[in-house]
Amino acid sequence: MIDALLKKIEEMNNPTVVGLDPTLDMIPSGLKAEMMEQYGKTPRAVAEMFLTFNKCIMDSVYDIVPSVKPQIAMYEKYGLEGIRAYLETIEYAKEKGLIVIGDIKRGDISSTAAAYAAHIEGTQIEEEYFDLWKEDWVTLNPYLGIDGIQSFIDACNKKDRGIFVLVKTSNPSSSQLQDILVGDKTIYETVAELVEEWGSQSMGTMGYSRVGAVVGATHKEQGEQLRKRMPHTFFLVPGYGAQGATGADLRGFFDKEGKGCIVNSSRGIIAAYKKNEKFGEDIGAAAREAALEMKADLQY
Amino acid sequence: MIDALLKKIEEMNNPTVVGLDPTLDMIPSGLKAEMMEQYGKTPRAVAEMFLTFNKCIMDSVYDIVPSVKPQIAMYEKYGLEGIRAYLETIEYAKEKGLIVIGDIKRGDISSTAAAYAAHIEGTQIEEEYFDLWKEDWVTLNPYLGIDGIQSFIDACNKKDRGIFVLVKTSNPSSSQLQDILVGDKTIYETVAELVEEWGSQSMGTMGYSRVGAVVGATHKEQGEQLRKRMPHTFFLVPGYGAQGATGADLRGFFDKEGKGCIVNSSRGIIAAYKKNEKFGEDIGAAAREAALEMKADLQY
Repeated sequence: MIDALLKKIEEMNNPTVVGLDPTLDMIPSGLKAEMMEQYGKTPRAVAEMFLTFNKCIMDSVYDIVPSVKPQIAMYEKYGLEGIRAYLETIEYAKEKGLIVIGDIKRGDISSTAAAYAAHIEGTQIEEEYFDLWKEDWVTLNPYLGIDGIQSFIDACNKKDRGIFVLVKTSNPSSSQLQDILVGDKTIYETVAELVEEWGSQSMGTMGYSRVGAVVGATHKEQGEQLRKRMPHTFFLVPGYGAQGATGADLRGFFDKEGKGCIVNSSRGIIAAYKKNEKFGEDIGAAAREAALEMKADLQY
Repeated sequence: MIDALLKKIEEMNNPTVVGLDPTLDMIPSGLKAEMMEQYGKTPRAVAEMFLTFNKCIMDSVYDIVPSVKPQIAMYEKYGLEGIRAYLETIEYAKEKGLIVIGDIKRGDISSTAAAYAAHIEGTQIEEEYFDLWKEDWVTLNPYLGIDGIQSFIDACNKKDRGIFVLVKTSNPSSSQLQDILVGDKTIYETVAELVEEWGSQSMGTMGYSRVGAVVGATHKEQGEQLRKRMPHTFFLVPGYGAQGATGADLRGFFDKEGKGCIVNSSRGIIAAYKKNEKFGEDIGAAAREAALEMKADLQY
């Protein structure tokens, strides 16, 4: 899957992942009214809105972006119906040929991590196998150390899927723990070395491993240094656009051949229709234009 | 809810939480056969097994333990049906008057954390309010700093519920990040100080805050030191029993009045029937006996 991701980015000449993080206030009024009429002001209605919204976005960008990243929190907020919309979003993404990064940020002790690993390994019930979640990649939290990661690496090897471990996140308080200096390096640099080492257990054939890292776009210098420190680690880069970073800030996150990263934009693409009246409620056309602008911004 | 938890522990004279972490190989053969006959070898069948299993455990211990802690990973493994079983387990626990700690270990940037906070705050859809998850407490991961926590603290204040932030986990590789020494204190001690400070935003009336900490039972000395360092922070203590710790190891995790902790046991209680042939497949009787033994072990 790391090879597949690298190839798809190259074919499309676009290292963009669209964050499918819908919120109720992003939903166009027409769609909202339609679903509320049918299902009331209920979680079911919101789930149907999110699914229709996501499908419209995907229909408009699947031929120009390689990947989508649904953030599961946005769906968990609406309980079981929300999670159903998350799962159906993933199924639709895969029908469209998109690579799916499930932004779940799980992390636990080993027996529990083995259960969570079903996200990418699937679930065995006696001799029957079920791929219930279908994400190609998921994000993970490193606070518990390798115990929380190993089951996922084993799953990556079995199923040729991948993980992104949080190294340096894009949010303001990421510094509280991640930037603490220990001797001559920070905690996030310590995690970076662990991630690079863990990845040696699961290399693809094109120079990168199935164990990627989350490196926030909002930290330009740190991203450049991490690229040098992690030569075999592919980066998932959140924080572009709405959170402030531009293409120029990210040049150093890529390797010398312009590879090694996929950059996420969520609101900047999926809610682009709100930024320009010319789109009215045409979320698809606005998303496509925003995705093309982002693609241009990421050409070096 | 911190006051309610303290009072319930005192009333029952028992600082135990039963971890509802079922696995397929814990299910008695009779129950397994019954559900597979009805639903096939499917996630639905496993969900029904888990729910019946959990209800039987709760029926057998609800009058002697104050709280249960379902680990959501065990349910996520079985997709949407699994999560339905998680939700129905929580509903049943609340009918039985048990305090519910949802072991979800979420953590993300602030806008995302606000969505996850629905676990304890519920969800507003226009003027309609839905309490979709119903956990009284949830566990959280601190790697992203206060951004990932603040929405939950606000929710705790609104709804009088609580959170447990991972400080020092019970697993072997917890040392990889958490024990790194920075000057004269470790990363987990740094997190401990943050948690104690965050808790000042949400104090109960009995000396403890709604911002608790996860402190693994497998680290005796560290637990004792953390109790001194965190005088207003209630501890959720995993790692008792199956992971190795005993009541004697935990004396120092409690305050001078014998308060300030709730100790989790999962397999040691819910799979106790497998340890003694006299129980046959009577998981409830075995769980009750194990819970009473644990209660006795935790009297000081």
